[in-house]
Amino acid sequence: MTKFLKVISPSAVLKILEGFPPLEAETIGLEAATGRVLAASTVSGEDIPAFPRATMDGFAVRARDVYGASETIPALLEVVGKVEMGEAARQPLTPGQAIVIPTGGMLPPGADAVVMVEHTQPLDDRTIEVTRPAAPGDNVLQVGEDLRSGAEVLPAGQRLRPQDVGLLAALGIMSVAVHRRPRVAVISTGDEVVSAGTAQLPLGKTRDINSYSIAGQLRQIGAITTLCGIVEDSLPQLTAACRQALADHDVVLLSGGSSVGARDYTIQVLESLPGAEILFHGIAVRPGKPTILARVGQKVFWGLPGQPVSALTIFTAFVKPLLERLEGERQKSVLQEATRIATLSASLPSVHGRSDYASVVLEERDGRLWATPLFGKSAMISLLSRADGYVIVPEHSEGLDQGTEVRIHLFSR
Amino acid sequence: MTKFLKVISPSAVLKILEGFPPLEAETIGLEAATGRVLAASTVSGEDIPAFPRATMDGFAVRARDVYGASETIPALLEVVGKVEMGEAARQPLTPGQAIVIPTGGMLPPGADAVVMVEHTQPLDDRTIEVTRPAAPGDNVLQVGEDLRSGAEVLPAGQRLRPQDVGLLAALGIMSVAVHRRPRVAVISTGDEVVSAGTAQLPLGKTRDINSYSIAGQLRQIGAITTLCGIVEDSLPQLTAACRQALADHDVVLLSGGSSVGARDYTIQVLESLPGAEILFHGIAVRPGKPTILARVGQKVFWGLPGQPVSALTIFTAFVKPLLERLEGERQKSVLQEATRIATLSASLPSVHGRSDYASVVLEERDGRLWATPLFGKSAMISLLSRADGYVIVPEHSEGLDQGTEVRIHLFSR
Repeated sequence: MTKFLKVISPSAVLKILEGFPPLEAETIGLEAATGRVLAASTVSGEDIPAFPRATMDGFAVRARDVYGASETIPALLEVVGKVEMGEAARQPLTPGQAIVIPTGGMLPPGADAVVMVEHTQPLDDRTIEVTRPAAPGDNVLQVGEDLRSGAEVLPAGQRLRPQDVGLLAALGIMSVAVHRRPRVAVISTGDEVVSAGTAQLPLGKTRDINSYSIAGQLRQIGAITTLCGIVEDSLPQLTAACRQALADHDVVLLSGGSSVGARDYTIQVLESLPGAEILFHGIAVRPGKPTILARVGQKVFWGLPGQPVSALTIFTAFVKPLLERLEGERQKSVLQEATRIATLSASLPSVHGRSDYASVVLEERDGRLWATPLFGKSAMISLLSRADGYVIVPEHSEGLDQGTEVRIHLFSR
Repeated sequence: MTKFLKVISPSAVLKILEGFPPLEAETIGLEAATGRVLAASTVSGEDIPAFPRATMDGFAVRARDVYGASETIPALLEVVGKVEMGEAARQPLTPGQAIVIPTGGMLPPGADAVVMVEHTQPLDDRTIEVTRPAAPGDNVLQVGEDLRSGAEVLPAGQRLRPQDVGLLAALGIMSVAVHRRPRVAVISTGDEVVSAGTAQLPLGKTRDINSYSIAGQLRQIGAITTLCGIVEDSLPQLTAACRQALADHDVVLLSGGSSVGARDYTIQVLESLPGAEILFHGIAVRPGKPTILARVGQKVFWGLPGQPVSALTIFTAFVKPLLERLEGERQKSVLQEATRIATLSASLPSVHGRSDYASVVLEERDGRLWATPLFGKSAMISLLSRADGYVIVPEHSEGLDQGTEVRIHLFSR
């Protein structure tokens, strides 16, 4: 049976992940930019708006002309024209004049405020009464008030949401430098694993679950994914498959074959690869202890546990953060973090000396989020679909009490 | 200026959306199933596991042989072999015997429990002492304990997560019936709108933001999206563009051209299309009142407000739920719901008679989520990128007080 060579703590793992640099940048068109991570901060090249813009339908006026106006003593203004939507307003406003203006229209030269239609009365075809005063700037968006030329619009390391892409479109920024997406190969191994397409499952075998659930997660985060299928758990076969996968990809995920009880081919494969450095072999967590991380030149190799819930947990806790790092993601809002605060609905016992990543089901009740630990046998694959995420019971804790507020790390939704 | 013809409440809108049936089903391979919505419930065709399976490394035993075993009076068992991972265990266990078994291995005939390695001592090559008793079923997953043949595994209407796809792989279900994804066309219009690629913005114009932010949102939810670009705000051009888009798509989203102040071509376009039925024209919300929904035969037509934050709000509140409905989504977990409970950090005034969908920024502080209303002018596009979502101030409310717990509806993350 495999001896674990370098078992380390989860925090030490996260520290190691910080050592991986992001992949190089590439330039892509704006229409493909949603979900990608900016490689450089973007700066506005112009003032938005570039002209003073009405924010209401009404009349462009000179504020001093309606000073003190009221229902009883309205200001009388001559209506001398209309600003057309999308047109440059060139006709200057002289004292005592007003010009009809739509929301979004350009203020004519000389005007400094917009009076809402509701605060006017038509007297005749060319004259209005204004029944409220207006201060300079009322209902006007000033030049550069929205975005100023030279200001940083979005920082490097931000994953672009659709609305960020909209903001870039507003500035006419039609291409952006983003980090390349990681190319990831997924390999399954294990004597007991047969293809998911096997109709009649031979006794003792299980179908390949991990290729599908891992590939689905990879695609959800936008990694370019290759399903390599099942490789026979033999040294020459595994070595050849891993060597090939490393040549063509940035990251190789091998699930199975790294646990106690399995032959320790994964370590032997790594030892046979030139430039391979095993960063750790075993994490002090349950489930998922039999996890290996190695660097092979510029490439990354993960040996993941074969048990599906363990693989899902380790993927969520460690593999995904590394992939996000390779993509250059630095700025993450609380909404992009896949965590929630919830209340434990039952106590969660634990033991000293290792961190428990306990699967939970989440449920909203009485306006509150409740986390219920799943105490099923961790080998059950039906747990896969029931677990919403996990809560960490730290190494030096004897458990968490019912009613504790905890942070839940979410599996893919 | 446009008169609104049929202004209705947000709840009446949601009621109308329920009247749209899902798109037809199609069968796809499992590797493409993540994110798709099941058109029929899936049922397990077999028991999982199909054989009693060890959940620990140790020795398969007959529980009665270790009855009462302890450190002082251990049970002595003869080790007669080893179960190989992935192999059918055929050698029956007779009284007084034990067989080495790995986690995941098949229990041999006659065995009914697994004793952990830690609870045994080797005496010689063929004999072990067992120092703890075991009950029948200990450390064993029984036939069908995980999933029983004939049981519903996943219900119709569920959007498949990677772990659900893993569960289907476990059952050898290699293809699934899912609802077709909606094909959606995005058109922008408006006299002031120019292509986002316009380098020198003419005075009075703004670049096309909505095509990009709406397309990004559509792609995030997996809709098959066509960017039709900007169509000139003239009746013949708009009619031709909408007719073409409706022919090739399930849903047409036209942004701009439906607001007060714009020419009311959208309504005229719809009136000229055979079979078009305007379901409403105007929603009693702010922002986003100038929204139109029409049914054109089997197709759906939305006229969205041109103002980007309004378009984002209406998309999130109404368009997205309809698209999810067309995809057949029925079961939605609290985690898939894009809402959060947060505390208002400032009061939010409102007026009777319309619902306010007020944009907020979210921030986690002291283990709590705080929502801060964005009081900027709603025409500002920089709000696009700052707003995390909106809170609804209901029609018959005069506002929400600071400190109120509210539900935030999230924009795309």
